[in-house]
Amino acid sequence: MELEKENGGKPSAERWHFGHNKAAAAAGNRSIRGTLSKVIASVEETGPRPLIQLGHGDPSPFPSFRTTPIAEDAIVEAVKSAQFNHYSPSHGLLPARRAVAEYLSKDIPYKLSSDDVFLTAGCAQAIDIVIAALARPDANILLPRPGFPLYEARCTFYNVEMRRFDLIPEQGWELDLDQVEKLTDENTVAIVLINPNNPSGSVLKYQHMEEIAKTARKLGIMVISDEAYGHLTFGSNPFIPMGVFGDVVPVLTLGSISKRWVVPGWRLGWIAMTDPKGILSETKVVDSIRSILDITINPVTFIQGAMPQIIEKTKDDFFNNIIHMLRGAAELCYNKIKDIKCITCPHKPEGSMFVMVKLNLSYLVDISDDVDFCLKLAKEETVIICPGSVLEMKNWLRITFAIEPASLEVGLERLKLFCERHEKN
Amino acid sequence: MELEKENGGKPSAERWHFGHNKAAAAAGNRSIRGTLSKVIASVEETGPRPLIQLGHGDPSPFPSFRTTPIAEDAIVEAVKSAQFNHYSPSHGLLPARRAVAEYLSKDIPYKLSSDDVFLTAGCAQAIDIVIAALARPDANILLPRPGFPLYEARCTFYNVEMRRFDLIPEQGWELDLDQVEKLTDENTVAIVLINPNNPSGSVLKYQHMEEIAKTARKLGIMVISDEAYGHLTFGSNPFIPMGVFGDVVPVLTLGSISKRWVVPGWRLGWIAMTDPKGILSETKVVDSIRSILDITINPVTFIQGAMPQIIEKTKDDFFNNIIHMLRGAAELCYNKIKDIKCITCPHKPEGSMFVMVKLNLSYLVDISDDVDFCLKLAKEETVIICPGSVLEMKNWLRITFAIEPASLEVGLERLKLFCERHEKN
Ligand SMILES: Cc1ncc(COP(=O)(O)O)c(C=O)c1O
Ligand SMILES: Cc1ncc(COP(=O)(O)O)c(C=O)c1O
Repeated sequence: MELEKENGGKPSAERWHFGHNKAAAAAGNRSIRGTLSKVIASVEETGPRPLIQLGHGDPSPFPSFRTTPIAEDAIVEAVKSAQFNHYSPSHGLLPARRAVAEYLSKDIPYKLSSDDVFLTAGCAQAIDIVIAALARPDANILLPRPGFPLYEARCTFYNVEMRRFDLIPEQGWELDLDQVEKLTDENTVAIVLINPNNPSGSVLKYQHMEEIAKTARKLGIMVISDEAYGHLTFGSNPFIPMGVFGDVVPVLTLGSISKRWVVPGWRLGWIAMTDPKGILSETKVVDSIRSILDITINPVTFIQGAMPQIIEKTKDDFFNNIIHMLRGAAELCYNKIKDIKCITCPHKPEGSMFVMVKLNLSYLVDISDDVDFCLKLAKEETVIICPGSVLEMKNWLRITFAIEPASLEVGLERLKLFCERHEKN
Repeated sequence: MELEKENGGKPSAERWHFGHNKAAAAAGNRSIRGTLSKVIASVEETGPRPLIQLGHGDPSPFPSFRTTPIAEDAIVEAVKSAQFNHYSPSHGLLPARRAVAEYLSKDIPYKLSSDDVFLTAGCAQAIDIVIAALARPDANILLPRPGFPLYEARCTFYNVEMRRFDLIPEQGWELDLDQVEKLTDENTVAIVLINPNNPSGSVLKYQHMEEIAKTARKLGIMVISDEAYGHLTFGSNPFIPMGVFGDVVPVLTLGSISKRWVVPGWRLGWIAMTDPKGILSETKVVDSIRSILDITINPVTFIQGAMPQIIEKTKDDFFNNIIHMLRGAAELCYNKIKDIKCITCPHKPEGSMFVMVKLNLSYLVDISDDVDFCLKLAKEETVIICPGSVLEMKNWLRITFAIEPASLEVGLERLKLFCERHEKN
């Protein structure tokens, strides 16, 4: 709106009791969105050259990644029925919870019931709720480095101490379990896994997962398994849900339809408990989750109403085609990057929509770090890439390959030209 | 899921570091949902008698309150276009923000721009975000008594001190501004108004609002105006948005399409700033809101995509019909209650979907308080009413009249029979 001028006197801020909230700013600063919008702001008006977004994982605008008509039709039917305009119950609609429970039970040796599933407005809200539920004073949580900044943001926001364990690039981004043990003390409540992994594109192997589960059990901590990219694997390691090890350690699985159905704008996700020993309810963690759900907004009711159809009727063809495209895109990306001197990829991506690559600054003349690289790349080539610093990996880059193949090729070519232009002779 | 037994040893809870979160429980205990589900649980299997819900404000399941086909069609079109499957920007889609800005500008002497509007997943999420943004250590907020428990829940959750000012039943539920002044100190950041009011059904008068604005300005606090029931007035006082007084004091208006369009399951709301002097940006309150939005989930993108159509195309006929039905229902409710000896209504409802009535326990034999009243009413008559205690008004009741007229009549008749049965001779 148009601003009026105060007539004279001291600055009006001094007369008001409200003001800046440093904690909110600290949490907000940890968002990818915040950083990416700075990178995008650095794009110059470059005339007809379209912006190429390799910064965030959202292929939904591209025709090749359009969701299945089955999902669209299920929504239309739910809206038209006028049966789902009402407020949602706090744990979600029963048929939708049941559909998710059945969906998840297919790949684990346990049969989840609707009571083991809480519906959330996407995996992002599942992260919010779970961190809030665990946010006791003095609690700390183990987070992966590189990681997904929303965990950092929510821990900062809820005042939960974060301890970083490293994913080792040279070992296919596996964990060092000795380091995990050393980081843990009696206030450590959980370890977060992201599998298939954003940002590295790696997929956990069965044996390594079993070791993680046993270590967590020994340490007395639960596993939070972020499976937002569940089933999106295209290498030699298949996707194995962490719930497989629910007998060893209680597992909270976070997921959504955002990535597999390519509908991140629909905001439908879940928290599922695989806990055959009932430890999460005995320790009242479930009560904490329920309390938070009681005061939290729910996913849109008619989208919940459409969930049974979306889950049960989507054809394998649709899923296979998405996998096929991601595999091709990952391949293209990996091969193109091999040709760029100042960038190395330690591990070929085999899942999710991302790859994490290392920047070798010594090959470059006028680039000071990863953020500088991304800002200049945006400015000169209208290509957006996420600087590794946001993910706690300075001088690394996260590249999304989940875009229309033709654009990916152009984007990577521009990246290559940019690097060549800035390389030492 | 089916639970396995641990074989022997100490209770497993002792071996785990995670456990109950008291702060989450305290916040969850303040939800209406929690309390109402206890009341509903008290309903006995009464055979064919259908449950009559006078407990919460959601008329959307009733045929007479079905939303306009214009809104449904706008959603269908947005889904079918496949243009809105992507993640939303953190402040919401520009055309939707612009549509809301124009909608709100019609009734105030200022022209809001899209920058003055942030979209939220309903008014409930707007409350969450605003309280979080103001939650500096030591901050306190003035809340109305009776109130809407989500404010209490969110203040508890974010550790913001709450100070209650009374709405005076005998004065048409107006505020006592002397009391407001006495409650305020240098850490008071805001006063919350709910207008049209849930639970009292009252509507603020222009002159009283102006006095409130001037008092807030003098005290150095902002006004948070919850207008979830905006335009839902049917008495002699018209609805006046608090933004009218944005020149006197900065106003954060919280609203949504939940009530006026009868689609609470769609989760589309807003935070709007009427602040012609730019005080909210000067004091960086806007930055705090933006930071929180950066880490918070957004309303479903295709519902945002449908917003311009929903707002611009909905016919007055639809709105008028809803008002007509609410007026009739309020009238019916008010008159029926006059016939019940142990319940008095201090002020005829003229807005929102609720009326607040006083229970006179001295007329009753075996009812100990408002909660006991509601539990027994549910058990004996399958009628759900919200006990006033949840709203900080012990021995009051909140009754919703926004249900199908025929059911309302039956529900009130059962309430009357219940009271007569429990009255002293
Ligand atoms: C690892 C990870 N977890 C969670 C999310 C959030 O997913 P959703 O869209 O379901 O909120 C993302 C989104 O990019 C992600 O990468
Ligand atoms: C006073 C008040 N504010 C906010 C809300 C939440 O509204 P929404 O459905 O838009 O989240 C309600 C819902 O009942 C309410 O009564």
